[in-house]
Amino acid sequence: MKTLQLRAFGKPTTAPELIEAAPLEPGAGQVLVALEAAPINPSDLLLITGRYGVRPPLPAALGAEGVGRIVAVGPTVDPVRIGERILIVPTLEHGTWQDQTVINEGDAVPVDPKADPLQLSMLGINPLTADLLLRRFTDLAPGAWVGQTGANSAVGRYVIALAKLAGVRTLNVVRRPEVAADLVEVGADAVVVSGPDLAEQLAAALGNDQISLVLDAVSGDVVTELAHSLVFGGTIVSYGRMSGAPAAISPADLIFRDVRLRGFWLKHWLETTPSARIAESYGRLAILVANGALRAPVEATYPLEQHRNALAHAAQAGRTGKVLFTW
Amino acid sequence: MKTLQLRAFGKPTTAPELIEAAPLEPGAGQVLVALEAAPINPSDLLLITGRYGVRPPLPAALGAEGVGRIVAVGPTVDPVRIGERILIVPTLEHGTWQDQTVINEGDAVPVDPKADPLQLSMLGINPLTADLLLRRFTDLAPGAWVGQTGANSAVGRYVIALAKLAGVRTLNVVRRPEVAADLVEVGADAVVVSGPDLAEQLAAALGNDQISLVLDAVSGDVVTELAHSLVFGGTIVSYGRMSGAPAAISPADLIFRDVRLRGFWLKHWLETTPSARIAESYGRLAILVANGALRAPVEATYPLEQHRNALAHAAQAGRTGKVLFTW
Repeated sequence: MKTLQLRAFGKPTTAPELIEAAPLEPGAGQVLVALEAAPINPSDLLLITGRYGVRPPLPAALGAEGVGRIVAVGPTVDPVRIGERILIVPTLEHGTWQDQTVINEGDAVPVDPKADPLQLSMLGINPLTADLLLRRFTDLAPGAWVGQTGANSAVGRYVIALAKLAGVRTLNVVRRPEVAADLVEVGADAVVVSGPDLAEQLAAALGNDQISLVLDAVSGDVVTELAHSLVFGGTIVSYGRMSGAPAAISPADLIFRDVRLRGFWLKHWLETTPSARIAESYGRLAILVANGALRAPVEATYPLEQHRNALAHAAQAGRTGKVLFTW
Repeated sequence: MKTLQLRAFGKPTTAPELIEAAPLEPGAGQVLVALEAAPINPSDLLLITGRYGVRPPLPAALGAEGVGRIVAVGPTVDPVRIGERILIVPTLEHGTWQDQTVINEGDAVPVDPKADPLQLSMLGINPLTADLLLRRFTDLAPGAWVGQTGANSAVGRYVIALAKLAGVRTLNVVRRPEVAADLVEVGADAVVVSGPDLAEQLAAALGNDQISLVLDAVSGDVVTELAHSLVFGGTIVSYGRMSGAPAAISPADLIFRDVRLRGFWLKHWLETTPSARIAESYGRLAILVANGALRAPVEATYPLEQHRNALAHAAQAGRTGKVLFTW
């Protein structure tokens, strides 16, 4: 069984090593899963470099989410599950960048076997993140505006799709004007380009409206600007830091307009939420993936053996879709 | 009757004009107050320059708080109140930088006639702000740490005193090392000086502890640094912007440690809180002022005629106490 292993934090292209490991055996309450598809997420790249929110003990398995088939079950698990296509509920411990993995039966959520396994493999992190970002911080009435930065990311596109389904409007900030048409096509109500005239663009897009919620994956000055357009008492939720800069808010917006800034980390939510609630969320989103309402563009797939190319590709600026490992 | 009036936003030393106005008459439910003392607050200076959270219609009366004696009452008000020393509940409309003012009876909170009128005149804004900053955002257990910037301000000193009364420890960030001894004398548990080694100073002061709540009057980089020392899920409350810089927080603290940033504006609280609750708060704090538990240093007092000198003095960096108008 081949597995991609991290022995020391470092560059994504050089730090992980592909090794041959002993075959896995599912224990009591566990299932053995043969992977079919596993995406490379920005958080994986952060983890490899050691800059993620937690550093796993080394050596560490890599890959946080994926889809596969149950190929064996341990004691106490009904063998009827063998053959099921399942989503692996994300944790740091699993490791999905390997031919097979053993997980607890409860972390194997059945998904539609007829749906696209590439799309399903991306369901564990980004669509759930988008769903929780939209639901957890503010009650959004139909017609309300959600503003978001990094709108062309996978999460950004899922936010657009889920907002559309809820009748909520999205104001999308991107860094490259050439992606605007594509975002409008997937349902964006307005697209603006970050830059010195962002304030004017926001005013033109919003008219007399204000933004009810800001979702920020970029941080830095763009947050300062969006805060000016928030409703009184509105919240900015930080879930990424593409710019590397701190999130900056004018004290005038904090004090006089009761603007609030906080963060969201899916890992913490998964660790503190009852598993039935987690499975319910995935079940609801898996239906939207299966029926095509939720999908993210795929830029390339690689076998595990080409991990250096795959990780270099995933780290490139200007990608237009996700990079995944497939089997 | 002399009144200091603002006809156009501008410099505090030149924009306000002292004019002779017609005598005031209290209407139904109102009282006429002869001012005894009225402080100059940083928010007054912001308002004069036009940079406050709201711009009053011009010409505008100035001064948001003060203490005086009821000298006449309107219809429906019990004449027994004539002679009472009262605190004027702050609003933008009153104007306390004038010989007399008319206010609603409910905005005249009786205070101890034997207590120092200078100290009482400063009760309306800063002590209530300090009290609400400590009570409204987090439940602070005895022994918990509160971190604050601008600790040598009037609010900062009231925070130290009120925290002490509640058994809460204060970690105080100041810009000038020479004020540290004085803050320790009034009850500060730790004083650190902002600068490049702030992180080391915080580590030395806190040991293995973390801060439960940060109160920020300065904004800028110091907020970024204090956020690193907050407990998981801890809140930073912005109520001032002495540095003029935006409040900056690392997305890592927001996302991975659930740090939250928000603001507090006393004016909004006063406008949205039942008047009985407001009077209860002032009554409780007035007792602490009368018995000496709460006091702020006074640097100078001026008659209204010397308003240019008074406002220039209030705007000076490096003051060690409040500047007030007295009659």
